[in-house]
Amino acid sequence: MPELRQDLVTGRWVAIATERAKRPSSFSRAASVAVPPSAKCPFCVGHESMTPPEVMAYRAPGTQPNTPGWEIRVVPNLYPAFGPADQAPVVKKCGPYETMTGVGIHEVLISSPSHGDDLAQLPVSQVAKIVRSYVDRYDAHRNNPYIKYMLVINNHGKEAGASLEHPHSQLFGIPIVPFNVREELDGVRRYREHHGSCVYCDILKTEESAGVRVIFDNQWFLVYAPFASRTPFEAQILPKWHSARFETMIPEQQEAFAAALHELTARIFKGLNDPPFNYYIHTAPVHGDTEQDYHWHLELLPKLAIAAGFELATGIMINVATPESAAEYLRTVDLNAATPGAVTPGVH
Amino acid sequence: MPELRQDLVTGRWVAIATERAKRPSSFSRAASVAVPPSAKCPFCVGHESMTPPEVMAYRAPGTQPNTPGWEIRVVPNLYPAFGPADQAPVVKKCGPYETMTGVGIHEVLISSPSHGDDLAQLPVSQVAKIVRSYVDRYDAHRNNPYIKYMLVINNHGKEAGASLEHPHSQLFGIPIVPFNVREELDGVRRYREHHGSCVYCDILKTEESAGVRVIFDNQWFLVYAPFASRTPFEAQILPKWHSARFETMIPEQQEAFAAALHELTARIFKGLNDPPFNYYIHTAPVHGDTEQDYHWHLELLPKLAIAAGFELATGIMINVATPESAAEYLRTVDLNAATPGAVTPGVH
Repeated sequence: MPELRQDLVTGRWVAIATERAKRPSSFSRAASVAVPPSAKCPFCVGHESMTPPEVMAYRAPGTQPNTPGWEIRVVPNLYPAFGPADQAPVVKKCGPYETMTGVGIHEVLISSPSHGDDLAQLPVSQVAKIVRSYVDRYDAHRNNPYIKYMLVINNHGKEAGASLEHPHSQLFGIPIVPFNVREELDGVRRYREHHGSCVYCDILKTEESAGVRVIFDNQWFLVYAPFASRTPFEAQILPKWHSARFETMIPEQQEAFAAALHELTARIFKGLNDPPFNYYIHTAPVHGDTEQDYHWHLELLPKLAIAAGFELATGIMINVATPESAAEYLRTVDLNAATPGAVTPGVH
Repeated sequence: MPELRQDLVTGRWVAIATERAKRPSSFSRAASVAVPPSAKCPFCVGHESMTPPEVMAYRAPGTQPNTPGWEIRVVPNLYPAFGPADQAPVVKKCGPYETMTGVGIHEVLISSPSHGDDLAQLPVSQVAKIVRSYVDRYDAHRNNPYIKYMLVINNHGKEAGASLEHPHSQLFGIPIVPFNVREELDGVRRYREHHGSCVYCDILKTEESAGVRVIFDNQWFLVYAPFASRTPFEAQILPKWHSARFETMIPEQQEAFAAALHELTARIFKGLNDPPFNYYIHTAPVHGDTEQDYHWHLELLPKLAIAAGFELATGIMINVATPESAAEYLRTVDLNAATPGAVTPGVH
């Protein structure tokens, strides 16, 4: 089982998951992430036997598990970073250090049977199924007492860490509330103590009123470039209603969320010539009573810059574009253009 | 002047430095970092006019500034992320948000006149000059009242963010104490309150005694893989004496530090086939009275993995190698081998 280790100075955790690698010498420069072509892709339709057995699928009536006929297919990750989640995590001292067994869940949610089409190219109806699968898998694990946090992420493109090209999302269930979420929970609490309101609700009002960082919106969601964007074209999908948990969305909200995710990724695809990106959903921790104060959202970060020595040393990202210029650019992308937009290389 | 913006929820700062880019559309996928060949390299000897005028150089007696004859040359960064530092930072409200002018210093410390040789290939005597230049440039700015933190970093290889191939380090002076350093200062204080000792001194004793994570040591420094290593082959150079500030090293300690840095980078170069890496020196803030409690050190992170959606969402790095196996591997590297060691690709 993978192991969590806590840094003695900072209190931050890392996950040591050696099953995901072969041996130390395999980390040489020549090593590269394998992105198999469609013919050998374990996520393509007809290749169901190449993955662990599915734990969920949306499939045509009458079709058997682990055979073709599916629209969305969910399988355990073959190289899990966490798991299984059938026992309480064990905390151990190792001299002055502390470790915890990496109890948890690590699933792959295959976006569609098609190898080449990611969110921007899929019909919005398929994106709605992807969103529904996020909620369904969350619900499947929410009563597990050993899981303290559940996270949906998506890596698009090799440079963003996608080890397989075939579009997919991942669900993680982990035995701790992660640092970055704790940081937001603390910020929400602090802001409420000072101002008596939800910081995300106030951001929503500010951004709707200012307009300059808005990319677009729909009935239920504002899509905007955060004031302190960490990377060029960072974007956030923020619910217009106060809600701690993405998994409590009603079907109409799920469809509006899918439409927002589809349009955002389409604007990025067309405007920036299909860059690699990561997105994740920050929702309230699975258990606990602070949850109603939180305000869930999706954060998307195009991988257009490298976090180098300065960023690693300080935690301060250097962003070479203002969110105002990024939002303006994404607002003007022609979604009906046949090919991705004009491209002007030249980052210094 | 660049601008710092604070995230309203987390309190984290980002630096918006638009002079470092052309325009939003330049961030398309086709854009790539320019690594000019030696013939056009502004850091090569004979090309001194291609950089801003030097602010310091170690050069042969009788040679003129901004001409050949130098061994180490320091110039202002042509695309500064911070600066200048001739006035106090101005804090402004922007609705509920806060900004600060990006007052500061951003210098390039060119490692040697040679385009191709980085630390691992340079003679240790040249690495000692590099270390001396870190201290000298720190000293040049330490009395600037607007600089709260000074940081030396090194990016090696394009994938680690080196925008120019010619080996160089960078000195940043910034108007805030960065989050990641504050986190360590807090950890040091917390540990001292509980245990009455320095957490880094206790780590030193633990690691020297356990041995399994030691890569090597010399009279003044322990070089080891941290217990909670964030990436495969993360390494730390830790002074064996308690000291808050790298810039207070006596010449003998500087030479031992250079020897440690030289051997560490050589073991990584030979053992891992010259991977990209970042290193930085965490020292105490420039001003302030908590400084004597801190314990400075160098952190080196090979760029052998991608921080993807999970890591960005949580702040928890997934490391596919144990620090124990990484340290064992680096201990056994043959530094006298003619070429970098055998390579076995295959990261999953």
